[in-house]
Amino acid sequence: MSEKPISRFPVPALPDMPEDIRALILSVQEKAGFVPNVFLALAHRPDEFRAFFAYHDALMERDSGLTKAEREMIVVATSGANQCQYCVVAHGAILRIRARDTLIADQVATNYRKADVTPRQRAMLDFAMKVSQSAHSVDDADFAALSAHGFSQEDVWDIGAISAFFALSNRFANMVSLRPNDEFYLMGRVARG
Amino acid sequence: MSEKPISRFPVPALPDMPEDIRALILSVQEKAGFVPNVFLALAHRPDEFRAFFAYHDALMERDSGLTKAEREMIVVATSGANQCQYCVVAHGAILRIRARDTLIADQVATNYRKADVTPRQRAMLDFAMKVSQSAHSVDDADFAALSAHGFSQEDVWDIGAISAFFALSNRFANMVSLRPNDEFYLMGRVARG
Amino acid sequence: MSEKPISRFPVPALPDMPEDIRALILSVQEKAGFVPNVFLALAHRPDEFRAFFAYHDALMERDSGLTKAEREMIVVATSGANQCQYCVVAHGAILRIRARDTLIADQVATNYRKADVTPRQRAMLDFAMKVSQSAHSVDDADFAALSAHGFSQEDVWDIGAISAFFALSNRFANMVSLRPNDEFYLMGRVARG
Amino acid sequence: MSEKPISRFPVPALPDMPEDIRALILSVQEKAGFVPNVFLALAHRPDEFRAFFAYHDALMERDSGLTKAEREMIVVATSGANQCQYCVVAHGAILRIRARDTLIADQVATNYRKADVTPRQRAMLDFAMKVSQSAHSVDDADFAALSAHGFSQEDVWDIGAISAFFALSNRFANMVSLRPNDEFYLMGRVARG
Amino acid sequence: MSEKPISRFPVPALPDMPEDIRALILSVQEKAGFVPNVFLALAHRPDEFRAFFAYHDALMERDSGLTKAEREMIVVATSGANQCQYCVVAHGAILRIRARDTLIADQVATNYRKADVTPRQRAMLDFAMKVSQSAHSVDDADFAALSAHGFSQEDVWDIGAISAFFALSNRFANMVSLRPNDEFYLMGRVARG
Amino acid sequence: MSEKPISRFPVPALPDMPEDIRALILSVQEKAGFVPNVFLALAHRPDEFRAFFAYHDALMERDSGLTKAEREMIVVATSGANQCQYCVVAHGAILRIRARDTLIADQVATNYRKADVTPRQRAMLDFAMKVSQSAHSVDDADFAALSAHGFSQEDVWDIGAISAFFALSNRFANMVSLRPNDEFYLMGRVARG
Repeated sequence: MSEKPISRFPVPALPDMPEDIRALILSVQEKAGFVPNVFLALAHRPDEFRAFFAYHDALMERDSGLTKAEREMIVVATSGANQCQYCVVAHGAILRIRARDTLIADQVATNYRKADVTPRQRAMLDFAMKVSQSAHSVDDADFAALSAHGFSQEDVWDIGAISAFFALSNRFANMVSLRPNDEFYLMGRVARG
Repeated sequence: MSEKPISRFPVPALPDMPEDIRALILSVQEKAGFVPNVFLALAHRPDEFRAFFAYHDALMERDSGLTKAEREMIVVATSGANQCQYCVVAHGAILRIRARDTLIADQVATNYRKADVTPRQRAMLDFAMKVSQSAHSVDDADFAALSAHGFSQEDVWDIGAISAFFALSNRFANMVSLRPNDEFYLMGRVARG
Repeated sequence: MSEKPISRFPVPALPDMPEDIRALILSVQEKAGFVPNVFLALAHRPDEFRAFFAYHDALMERDSGLTKAEREMIVVATSGANQCQYCVVAHGAILRIRARDTLIADQVATNYRKADVTPRQRAMLDFAMKVSQSAHSVDDADFAALSAHGFSQEDVWDIGAISAFFALSNRFANMVSLRPNDEFYLMGRVARG
Repeated sequence: MSEKPISRFPVPALPDMPEDIRALILSVQEKAGFVPNVFLALAHRPDEFRAFFAYHDALMERDSGLTKAEREMIVVATSGANQCQYCVVAHGAILRIRARDTLIADQVATNYRKADVTPRQRAMLDFAMKVSQSAHSVDDADFAALSAHGFSQEDVWDIGAISAFFALSNRFANMVSLRPNDEFYLMGRVARG
Repeated sequence: MSEKPISRFPVPALPDMPEDIRALILSVQEKAGFVPNVFLALAHRPDEFRAFFAYHDALMERDSGLTKAEREMIVVATSGANQCQYCVVAHGAILRIRARDTLIADQVATNYRKADVTPRQRAMLDFAMKVSQSAHSVDDADFAALSAHGFSQEDVWDIGAISAFFALSNRFANMVSLRPNDEFYLMGRVARG
Repeated sequence: MSEKPISRFPVPALPDMPEDIRALILSVQEKAGFVPNVFLALAHRPDEFRAFFAYHDALMERDSGLTKAEREMIVVATSGANQCQYCVVAHGAILRIRARDTLIADQVATNYRKADVTPRQRAMLDFAMKVSQSAHSVDDADFAALSAHGFSQEDVWDIGAISAFFALSNRFANMVSLRPNDEFYLMGRVARG
């Protein structure tokens, strides 16, 4: 395991964390087998930790017209555009697992226009990228394009809100030089029989 | 008062909101004299509402080496760069009030390099803008520049985290076409005797 | 009143100015109640002063298919894009007065796509912004779009020429660090009964 | 001679022009042997014509610490960056003649950093390009760099003001699709014995 | 194995290729276990095929002050910036193998500034990216920075020439929609004991 | 004749070059009357020299649906966008000669949208510029646009491949500060009777 620093800022030890945060981290560790570094880096600021993961789960765990894999596609595509190493590596792993597809994450991270996605998913990613890179110019034509692909108004909110949330996440990770856990790189790369 | 829509998405009526959200909105209304539209637009998604304002308050209300006025400068400068009408108008009003300065918000929104700020505040805004516009290239030299102006490590986190949070906020507001309340435009523009 | 410098360059005293320039400045002062700083900064170069204001008036005072308020919208939108503090603050004031609208200037300066303008005015501002930001790519389709909104050929010239003139003005103001007069910030913000 | 249109807009016949404009055009024709198209295109708007050429001459004909060739370098470099065909071709010809250098115009138009200019001229062009492309970020360091090369405060104004004026001129020419006269292309390309 | 098209253009069958190209492809297949799609797509144009691989080998196989892994870092970093899926996936695999490092390729592809590279390699990648993204502004300071890190003049040529060659390669691959072979994604991801 | 250096890197003397390279250079000199500097600069690296000119000739000399003049238009337009002085000056000369047009090169180099080209050539240049400046976003609509102008699939490859090759060439020339021969500037500027 790498011993490189995982953040430019202090990272608290588990025993020094508030109880709710320690409990959440331990439960994540139990499920994943390791603690993703974003939990440790954000634990330096407990209130921000709580808000960040509440926001994340509100978007990524809710019932939605978008599958969980599609939501991860949005994360990976916009994080690639924002050159966020942590988000591309960590959410790339999650995308591979959710989509049961060993290739999709690297495709979407590099150039989603050339990825193995449906036309509907392409429209979803076009909108997510516009919110990510030039939200000021979003207008009626963008909403019409999504509607034409069968997205509901709530789906559009989900796409835009996920893109907006990771605009925050990408900037935070780049600011603190958040290091992706070594474990993420290989996850989901070998198809299960 | 304007009757233009305040969001592209449905806005719930107060009686239809969850109790905690209605209570928060009523308390804001009592203090401010009106309900800022961001509360109403986000109430469409209660979980996101709760996370958004918890995050906001964690950054904007905490004890910090930055004054509250300085934190609003960060919001206004980065929201100007992101062409976010709601954030510039609403937080411009708050900045005028917090800084007791009738000119500062319009200056910072348009070109912070020409604003009446101290060299220390200029360095703060340079970093906030870099996190906002090209966080991928933040590096050691940026941290050294802030340190040279006396910012602590925690101050730097605050600057970057506020900039990152409003990267989310700006994109959300532009996506939903969030309309600034008419009340904000004039707030803090007349100096008190 | 602020005592900050209004220009990086020398500013002549009224008695030292050529007679025609002094007379013009005094007449402006009489009408406005103060002397906008652009007059004082440019008086350092009398020939440029004369040409600048002749050009300005040829565009902004002529009979035109554009209202005076619409012409100020063009100024404010393009000056916002060029981050020109003087032009946004000073012409924002004039726009509020000409349009008898207390909100329009801040809306247009930040993101004209979200401003309370008609579809025709939106098309006008789209063209003005294209001339301002990428004139090299203006082509037939842009002229057709304006024609479809009922703009005459002379109107199109006006839109483009105003945008081009303030491309000069914005760069001049940023180069000399032209300071907006304090008076502009509040002008036109309180609706008359 | 080419019979392509010289402007998207109407071009008046000489007899239909105001007397002062016709006289000026005839005197230019006598000196140059032909009428540069910018005179004809702008004659469509006599007041703008007068202001434009008054401004041009105030900057390009005044006594200055910059040679006339250096001023044309500024025009050609910034017009190249703005993709203004008329200005590059017409002022390229003037630059060749003023500098008595058959190569300099094509060098400066394409990439002034690789042109046969002195370090002082390189600094001049760096500043002109910054005013042309990102005037909002001009600051003290830029003025210090010019001062270190011996430029006076008045010289700096000249550099910036010429760059700003051609920001207008380039946008106007691109908007009207101003066609360079065929005569310009070969002017100054053959060294005199 | 995927049955998606590997190029927008016709791909010749092995028996229809010129003898030298078929022989080269068969030898690559023997060594790698599969035929990288760039060989098949370019075989549509035998003369371009021969020149492309001759150029590639002249840069990537020559004796150089850069290791083969370092040369692949240049390819992966610049291809990431150019959003070239084929080059990132294929050369990412080669980089992992050459560097015997399972993490480095994903790090460099997303944001080389956050990758596990030495300061000397960071300087190498800074220069490669400048040649890739704004070669027109390369100047003396860039050469001095490389020299300070011990790069010889020949090393600098190598860095710049590899970056320039993949500027071609990235554009070709994006133009033809060159599909990365499925085999590349997993290569080099499992460290050998 | 200029005695300025033609490259930042060593330039071998003719007698020191490999026989095949010397022979090629002498034959070029015989035909053109001088040796274009790109041959001398690249002779520093014989293998790259051979691959470069093989690639160049494969694209520029092959039978094609594009005339040789059209291919040079692609070179000049994209080299202008990349600010490559050598390529604009040298290929501008070749374009003038191949097109028997004294004006076309300066027009295309500065702004191809205003050049005297046919609508078909305009579509060709639009595609070439997209491959040059944002190849990652090339998609079906671009191919359809070319097809609508009668370009075959092979023509499209030619357009894109020439643009891609000069992406390499432009970066190489800017990296080594390749100086255009003085002879190029005047070539093809005087129409033959």
